[in-house]
Amino acid sequence: VVYKIFIYLIKICFEFYICVCVCVCAGNVFVSFIGSEDRTPKKKFSEVQKERREQAQRTVLIHCPNKISEKKFLKYLSQHGPISHHFFYESFGLYAVVEFCQKESVTSLQNVTRTPSMGTEAAIPFKSRFFNLKLKNPSSQTSEKSSIPCSNHSPPSSKKLSELLCYAESVDDQLNTLLKEFQLTEEDIKLRYLTCSLIEDLAAAYFQDCTVRPFGSSVNSFGKLGCDLDMFLDLDEIGKLNTSKTSGNFLMEFQVKNVPSERIATQKILSVIGECLDHFGPGCVGVQKILNARCPLVRFSHQASGFQCDLTTNNRIALKSSELLYMYGALDSRVRALVFSIRCWARAHSLTSSIPGSWITNFSLTMMVIFFLQRRSPPILPTLDYLKTLADAEDKCIIEGHNCTFIRDLNRIKPSGNTETLESLLKEFFEYFGNFAFNKNSINIRQGREQNKPECSPLHIQNPFETSLNISKNVNQSQLQKFVDLARESAWILSQEDKDRPSPSSNQPWGLAMLLQPSVVSSVSLAKKKRRKPASERIKNLLESIKSHSPENDTDTNGKRTVSTQA
Amino acid sequence: VVYKIFIYLIKICFEFYICVCVCVCAGNVFVSFIGSEDRTPKKKFSEVQKERREQAQRTVLIHCPNKISEKKFLKYLSQHGPISHHFFYESFGLYAVVEFCQKESVTSLQNVTRTPSMGTEAAIPFKSRFFNLKLKNPSSQTSEKSSIPCSNHSPPSSKKLSELLCYAESVDDQLNTLLKEFQLTEEDIKLRYLTCSLIEDLAAAYFQDCTVRPFGSSVNSFGKLGCDLDMFLDLDEIGKLNTSKTSGNFLMEFQVKNVPSERIATQKILSVIGECLDHFGPGCVGVQKILNARCPLVRFSHQASGFQCDLTTNNRIALKSSELLYMYGALDSRVRALVFSIRCWARAHSLTSSIPGSWITNFSLTMMVIFFLQRRSPPILPTLDYLKTLADAEDKCIIEGHNCTFIRDLNRIKPSGNTETLESLLKEFFEYFGNFAFNKNSINIRQGREQNKPECSPLHIQNPFETSLNISKNVNQSQLQKFVDLARESAWILSQEDKDRPSPSSNQPWGLAMLLQPSVVSSVSLAKKKRRKPASERIKNLLESIKSHSPENDTDTNGKRTVSTQA
Repeated sequence: VVYKIFIYLIKICFEFYICVCVCVCAGNVFVSFIGSEDRTPKKKFSEVQKERREQAQRTVLIHCPNKISEKKFLKYLSQHGPISHHFFYESFGLYAVVEFCQKESVTSLQNVTRTPSMGTEAAIPFKSRFFNLKLKNPSSQTSEKSSIPCSNHSPPSSKKLSELLCYAESVDDQLNTLLKEFQLTEEDIKLRYLTCSLIEDLAAAYFQDCTVRPFGSSVNSFGKLGCDLDMFLDLDEIGKLNTSKTSGNFLMEFQVKNVPSERIATQKILSVIGECLDHFGPGCVGVQKILNARCPLVRFSHQASGFQCDLTTNNRIALKSSELLYMYGALDSRVRALVFSIRCWARAHSLTSSIPGSWITNFSLTMMVIFFLQRRSPPILPTLDYLKTLADAEDKCIIEGHNCTFIRDLNRIKPSGNTETLESLLKEFFEYFGNFAFNKNSINIRQGREQNKPECSPLHIQNPFETSLNISKNVNQSQLQKFVDLARESAWILSQEDKDRPSPSSNQPWGLAMLLQPSVVSSVSLAKKKRRKPASERIKNLLESIKSHSPENDTDTNGKRTVSTQA
Repeated sequence: VVYKIFIYLIKICFEFYICVCVCVCAGNVFVSFIGSEDRTPKKKFSEVQKERREQAQRTVLIHCPNKISEKKFLKYLSQHGPISHHFFYESFGLYAVVEFCQKESVTSLQNVTRTPSMGTEAAIPFKSRFFNLKLKNPSSQTSEKSSIPCSNHSPPSSKKLSELLCYAESVDDQLNTLLKEFQLTEEDIKLRYLTCSLIEDLAAAYFQDCTVRPFGSSVNSFGKLGCDLDMFLDLDEIGKLNTSKTSGNFLMEFQVKNVPSERIATQKILSVIGECLDHFGPGCVGVQKILNARCPLVRFSHQASGFQCDLTTNNRIALKSSELLYMYGALDSRVRALVFSIRCWARAHSLTSSIPGSWITNFSLTMMVIFFLQRRSPPILPTLDYLKTLADAEDKCIIEGHNCTFIRDLNRIKPSGNTETLESLLKEFFEYFGNFAFNKNSINIRQGREQNKPECSPLHIQNPFETSLNISKNVNQSQLQKFVDLARESAWILSQEDKDRPSPSSNQPWGLAMLLQPSVVSSVSLAKKKRRKPASERIKNLLESIKSHSPENDTDTNGKRTVSTQA
C-alpha cells in the first residue's frame, strides 16, 4: 500500500511538473489561461508585445523544398548561430519559421544568400528575411522521405468541431474544447509577429525608427485561427528623439516634405509603402490602397503566411482597445471560453459575417459578453471605470483627447469570487440578452450598467474610449431581432437539454453542439419569416445594409476604425 | 643690379609656386587642362568617380537663414568633426554644402537633428543629409550682416560673354575664356555628386548595395553650367555578392518578386523610386515617371541644387561613353575649348535646342569636333581603334555584347605633336564641315576617317560603341543644310576678320564674338528662305521632327539612350 501511495504521489508530482512545463516552456501567454487558474505572474500587454517583436526580429521565413531532412536543414542553418525555436507549416508549399538566438545570425545568413538569377524572367533584387531554400542535388535527399511535422493554422471544420464537442464530458468541457480548437496557436502568433516584422523592414527603409505593430484580434487574445492580421505603422518614436541636444543659437531640422494635413501625410506614406509592397515585397500580393477611407489603409495578402493584412498608420486607440481586451481575457479563464463560444454560435446562425454590413460584429459580441460578466453577482469582470481608479501615474494614457487610462498590471487586480460554471453562464447570457431592453438601454462596459440610449440606433454599445461613439451603429432592427430570437431559443434549448442529455456514446449533438446546429425552432420561425419576406425584400435589406456602411456613416464597430472603399 | 635680378628670380619662383598651387590644390581635374600643358599624372575616370562619390557621402546640404555668420556656422558644425571643404550658393534661399573629413560626422549631425513640428501642416518624417538650419534667436545674428561669398553656378549672359570676348587678347584667348566661363566649376561638380548621393540614399533604402552614378555632361568634362544631371541606378553589384560561399547541398536565395522581363523590373523599380522621390524626397519636385520610353526614366527637379535630373537604371554604355569623352577632353587642352565654342556657336544660331526634335545634338557636335581633330595632320586626337589597341587586359569591357574596350590610363597615351592654334582650328573646322560630303560619307571616330554611309539619313555619325546606330538619325536635311551654310559663313567671317581686326578699345565684336552675333549673311539668306517657306511649312517641319522622335525611331543621339514619352 505504501508503495502504491508512493507511486501515486510520484505520478501526481510528474503530472504537475508537466503542467508547469507546458505553461512556462511554451512561452504562450494564452496557454496559461486555459483550464486551471494558475497564479504565476502575468505579463503586461506591452511586455508581451515587446518580447514578441524582439523574437520576430531574429526570425527568418524560409520556403523549403517539399522533400527535406529536418535534421540536415537545422544543421545547415546552425552554421549561422544557435536556433532557439523553429517550426514548419504548409501554405503554398512548405515553409519554415526559424528563430535564431541572436539577431546577428540573420545577417550572417543574409550574407551567404544570393539574389536568384531568373533565366528568362527578371528579379527585383530585394533583400529581406524571407528566403528560398533550394537543393543543389534534389535526388540525394528525397531518399529519406522524412515527413516533417507541420503546425496547423486553420480552425477545425464544422464536422470536426461537432465530433469534438459530442465527445466532451460536460458543457464546460465543450466551451473549453472550442476555445482550444479556435484560439491562435503559439506558432500562429509567432508567424503573425514575424509578418509584421517583415513589413516593418520594408517601412523602416524609409522611416528608420518606425515600428509596425499588430493590433486587434492577433494580439487581444480573442483572435480565431485564420483571422485577419491588422497592423499599423507607428511613426510616433521618430519625432521624439534628441530634441534637447542642440546647442548655441542654432537649431537643425531635417528638410522634409510638408503636406497640408496629417491625413494627407498618412495617405502619402501608405501610398508609397503600398507601392513597395506591391513591387518589391516578397510574397505580398493583391495590394489594394484604400486611401480615401476614414482611416486610410493598405490591404494585401501575405501569401507565404496566408494572412490577409490591413496596414494603417498610427492607430493607438485601436492598440489600447486591444490591450483592454487582453486584460479582460486574462483576468478570468471563463471570459475567452464564453466569448469564443458565443462568437461561434453567432457565426453558425449567420448573425455575424465576414463582409461589412448590418450584422453584429465580433467586437460588439465581445463587449456584450464582458458587459454580461460585469453584471453577474458577484461580478466576474470589473468595470473599466474601476480599472481606471486602480491606475497609477505610469498607466496614464490620453490619446487624441480621449482618456484611455486603466491599470495595466494584471497582477494588481483581485480575482473574482464568482464560481459560476461556464454552462450556467452560457445559459444566463442567452437569457439576459433575450430579455434585454435594447429599445431604451445602452450597453456600457465603462460603468458596467445599463444606461439610457443617447441615440436611436437599434443596438447601442458605447465605444469604451471614444465614448460618444456607438460601436454597433451599423446593426439594424431586423438583425437585432434575429439575435434576440436566437438567444431566447438557445436559452430554451439549454434548459431543455438539462433534462435529456444523450448517452456519451450516442454521437448525438448535445449542449453547445446542439446550439451550433441549424436551429430547429428558429429555422421554423425563420422559414415563416422567409415566407413573409420574399427574396426581393432580403436583397433590399442587403442593399440597405451596404448603403449604411458608406464612409460617412462609418463608426467604430470593431475596436479599430472601420474601413470602406469609396467608389 | 644683382639685387634686382634676385628680386626678379624670387618673383618668378613665387608665380610658379602659385601656378602649381592652383593646379594641385583646387583638386579640380578640369583646371589642369586649361592653359599650359602640365605633365602631372592624370587620374583615371574611374578614380575621379570613386573619389568624388566618397567625398559626396561625407557631405551634407544645409538650407541656411539669409543672415548668418559664416564663422559661427562653421564653428557650430565643427562640433561634429573637422570640415574639409565648404561653400555657399543661392538658389531658392541660401544653401551651404559642407564636406566633413569623416563620414561619422554626418551621423553625429543627424543624431542631434529633429524632425520639424509643422503647426497646422504635417511633415513626412524622412531623415536625409539635407537639413534646414534655423536661428533660435534671429535678431542676435542679423546685426553682423556679414555677406557670405556665394559660388555661382549659372553661365554668363550673352551680353556678359560678349564683353569678355571683346576684351580678350586673341581668338585663342577668346576660346579659352569661353571655356572658363561655361565649364562646370569645382563647386558645381561637388553639388552634382552630392545630389546623386542624396538620391542614392533614397534608393539604397531598398537596394542596399546600389550606386547612383552621374553620367553624361556632368562627368564627361564637356558639361556646361546649368546642364541637366543625368544619373543611373546601378544595381549590378547586388547580384554579385557571395555566390560561392554556400556549403553543403543547400543553396539559399532571397525570396523576390519575379517579373517577365528586365524591362518590367526596371519599370517597377523606377516607378517606386519615383513615388519615393515625389512623396518623401526632400526638395524633389515635378517628378515625372516616363516609364514607357525606350529607356525608362524618372525625371525630377532637385529644387535646392537647381538641377533638372533624369534617373534611369543600368546605363553602363552611357557611362562608358562619358569616360571616352573624358579621355578625349583630357588628352589635349584644345579639345574642350574648341568643343565648348562650337557648341556655343551652334546654340547662338539655333542649330541646337533644349527640346527634342530634328536639331543637331551637342553630342553629335562633340563627335564632329573629335573626328575633325583626328583628321588633322599630325592628328591632335587618336582614333578609338588606336585607344583600343593600347588597352591591356584590365581595360577589357564588353557591355551587352558591344566591345567598349579602350585604354583608360591617360598617362600612357603619347601627346600630339600638332601645334596648330585654336584660331586656326576653329577656322579649319568650319571649312572642313562646310565642304564635307555629308551625302555620301559617315563620320566615325572609331576609325577616324570618312566611311560610306550605311543608310540614307542626311547626317550619319556612327555611335562609337553600338556601331550599327547613327547618333544623328534625328537630324533632317534642312537642319543639316543650315549647319553647312552657317559653317561656310563662319569660315568666311573668320577669313575676313584676319584683315580688319578692330582696335582693342573699340568695344566692337570680333573673332569668336563676331561668330556668336546674329549672323549678317546668314540672316539675309535665312530671311530669303523664310520667305520661301511660310510659317505653316515651318510648323510642319517641327511636327515632323517631333514625330520622328517617337520611341521606335529613337536611336542613340547623345551618348545616352534617348528618351521620349509615349502618348
